[in-house]
Amino acid sequence: MQEVLNYINSNRENYIEELKEFLKIESISSDPEKKSELTRCSEFVKDKFHQMGLDNIQVLNTEGHPIVFAEKIVDPNKPTILIYGHYDVQPVDPLDLWTSPPFQADIRDEKIWARGATDDKGQVFTHFKSIEAFFKTSTELPVNVKFIIEGEEEIGSPSLVKTVAANKDLLKCDAVVISDTSMYDEKTPSITYSLRGLAYFQIEITGPNRDLHSGTFGGAVMNPIQALCDLINGMKDKNGHITIPGFYDDVLKLTKKEREGFKRLKFNEKAYKKDLGVKELFGEKGFTTLERTGARPTFELNGIWGGFTGQGAKTVLPSKAYAKFSMRLVPNQTPKKVEKLIQAYLKKAVPKSVNYKVEALHGGEPALTPIDGFAIQSAARAMKTAFGKEPIFTREGGSIPIVVDFGRILKAPVVLMGFGLSSENLHSPNEHFDLNNFQKGILCSALFMNEFSQA
Amino acid sequence: MQEVLNYINSNRENYIEELKEFLKIESISSDPEKKSELTRCSEFVKDKFHQMGLDNIQVLNTEGHPIVFAEKIVDPNKPTILIYGHYDVQPVDPLDLWTSPPFQADIRDEKIWARGATDDKGQVFTHFKSIEAFFKTSTELPVNVKFIIEGEEEIGSPSLVKTVAANKDLLKCDAVVISDTSMYDEKTPSITYSLRGLAYFQIEITGPNRDLHSGTFGGAVMNPIQALCDLINGMKDKNGHITIPGFYDDVLKLTKKEREGFKRLKFNEKAYKKDLGVKELFGEKGFTTLERTGARPTFELNGIWGGFTGQGAKTVLPSKAYAKFSMRLVPNQTPKKVEKLIQAYLKKAVPKSVNYKVEALHGGEPALTPIDGFAIQSAARAMKTAFGKEPIFTREGGSIPIVVDFGRILKAPVVLMGFGLSSENLHSPNEHFDLNNFQKGILCSALFMNEFSQA
Repeated sequence: MQEVLNYINSNRENYIEELKEFLKIESISSDPEKKSELTRCSEFVKDKFHQMGLDNIQVLNTEGHPIVFAEKIVDPNKPTILIYGHYDVQPVDPLDLWTSPPFQADIRDEKIWARGATDDKGQVFTHFKSIEAFFKTSTELPVNVKFIIEGEEEIGSPSLVKTVAANKDLLKCDAVVISDTSMYDEKTPSITYSLRGLAYFQIEITGPNRDLHSGTFGGAVMNPIQALCDLINGMKDKNGHITIPGFYDDVLKLTKKEREGFKRLKFNEKAYKKDLGVKELFGEKGFTTLERTGARPTFELNGIWGGFTGQGAKTVLPSKAYAKFSMRLVPNQTPKKVEKLIQAYLKKAVPKSVNYKVEALHGGEPALTPIDGFAIQSAARAMKTAFGKEPIFTREGGSIPIVVDFGRILKAPVVLMGFGLSSENLHSPNEHFDLNNFQKGILCSALFMNEFSQA
Repeated sequence: MQEVLNYINSNRENYIEELKEFLKIESISSDPEKKSELTRCSEFVKDKFHQMGLDNIQVLNTEGHPIVFAEKIVDPNKPTILIYGHYDVQPVDPLDLWTSPPFQADIRDEKIWARGATDDKGQVFTHFKSIEAFFKTSTELPVNVKFIIEGEEEIGSPSLVKTVAANKDLLKCDAVVISDTSMYDEKTPSITYSLRGLAYFQIEITGPNRDLHSGTFGGAVMNPIQALCDLINGMKDKNGHITIPGFYDDVLKLTKKEREGFKRLKFNEKAYKKDLGVKELFGEKGFTTLERTGARPTFELNGIWGGFTGQGAKTVLPSKAYAKFSMRLVPNQTPKKVEKLIQAYLKKAVPKSVNYKVEALHGGEPALTPIDGFAIQSAARAMKTAFGKEPIFTREGGSIPIVVDFGRILKAPVVLMGFGLSSENLHSPNEHFDLNNFQKGILCSALFMNEFSQA
């Protein structure tokens, strides 16, 4: 095993150069114009699998962006891990806020800067490199390994569940490993045992059938922007409580133990506010910031638009207004139920003076994994060795919709072993990935396989 | 006089062709990239003045877009009218909603379709052609005529007041004539004796210093779109009352006589709703639609934007959100006072968790002209002859900021003799001008000069 770790430690520069190539591909899954880039990125993943010497390399689904599979079965009697990740990335706008171009990875301050660096190409790459290290040092893999790497995570994994269900036997495993979450901080590794779910909507409000002159028609009809703002105002109150009727009904309450755990983390609110540039934090009254971002459901506006948005003063009373909004869900909420609540709220709250259309764009169930299983404990031991510090167990605010489905379909524990940081601008300009954590992530992946082989 | 009217009636086709040339110029005053088009349009106006045989043609102000002056003093003992109008136009977006290109005038259904057709190039042109008819028929002009045609009306006439004040003697007159308002309906001419003022603002809300991932940070900070919607919601209630403290304090109440006048107009609400495509109208409770659009102050959102507005679901918690909003004012409100009220409201209502900036983009005082003066009565007689129907006296919802200033600086009554229709899509796609009203407008302008010569 020491030989594997030494090999990893002596190849740091090569890993960075290879990751740069991965990050050059503009695999924005939500942009229909980037379809060929997604295909190119899936080919890149397949090439890597070939180079690593994996077997049975194939594309499992061709309806959406390709889902790439590969495996190495060294011994049917050994435990098997399935590594999931995604090669697609978020859009890059606003482009002018990037210090270096999003698809030309730049190295600064021991970080690699590019779209997808931490979410999720850099994290996926740790597993590619750890497995390669076993082969390169002619060390037998301690476990059987399977990969399933998709290209639609950032748009809600529309093809993945079907694909996993249709390939249950092929994907059979003893644990699923996902590296797509954040560490607690730069030095503190953490294992995420809970993820929030997601219910994402777009609403369109139509007032008059055309844009009107606000002088001639102002005061005669409902302004669709006004109606939209009133509806948004009606979904959250001044104390940060979500006021959509029934929204909290299914929320699993935090246990006393969990709340104490959060308290022990000694969250530095002052530094957090300074980093975000805000004078005051804001959120659901009665809960701490860590509870609100990790363990409580939230409601956020993701975008809004309507009317005249150019320079100067156009006195228009617009015909239409739009918003995108989403809720993070916690156990035992479901996106389906939340959609019903939204529909019921809108049905009642939208005034008759306008029309509306609401569309559910993206949904994912929340997840909660028991922390005393062998897989999760193996991950904890590997992390302690790789990072030199005991990991902490956290709940995370983000959503990986597939976590619930993996557990349900494959009947295997899901280990969320993340090497990113929440400050690494995933989903915003200047995304980056800490290169020390990248390197430690590769070590951790190798150590985890070794630990888990005792299962 | 009959010769003049005959000449006008026999030149209908020529007038349309000439107007088409005027409408080809892309004189969007709010667009810095169209500066040369504004200059070109002012040259077009000067050329017309030359062709008409006017004297003393000059540009009065060169700070903003050119303000063009010309005059014909036929006899110092005759009364003098000053005709004001504007050659600038509104922006054209959204371009894809235009049936024919906005700057290639098209003739359909006895209407001319182009940006600026009714607001205000077509209306200004009626006076050019009526005066030309006197010269072409060697009929002496019954009054002295002055023109002041500007290119910044759609951006709030920032240079005009100063220019009028600085050229008080040059502009001296016995009445100001403006054709930039609407008729009551297609067949019913009307004289507007009251116009609403305008106070237009843009607000910027800043939450965190960068776009954040809504999963990781959702629930921790105030979402700037939420804050913006809450603020907008706080400015108008469900009964359409504006809830900015102090907003109605200076509002001149409608007299019983005025309310009866509105009632007599027999407003067809059903047809109005059908035209606008709405199931229900909406506005200040306790007032009729005509009162609300003509005689009461209003609050409208003109634009809103922030966050992700592309296709699909980007889970961003944005850093910034913006809105443009404006109020139509009635006597005795002032834009300055309203700005103070907005500032006071925001100071109190904006939560500490965000920062804000508000900018006053455009302001104009409301106007009210006594209807028993000789000028306004001359206009009424001219309209009756030209349109074959007694005009009605109306209050109009739109704003022509300069109306108040003309009255104040030049100490002359302002006659609002409009030939447009409120259904002619001024400020929206598919702007047009009824060609019969264009023609009758030319006759009316000539008749007015004849009537007013008796002053």
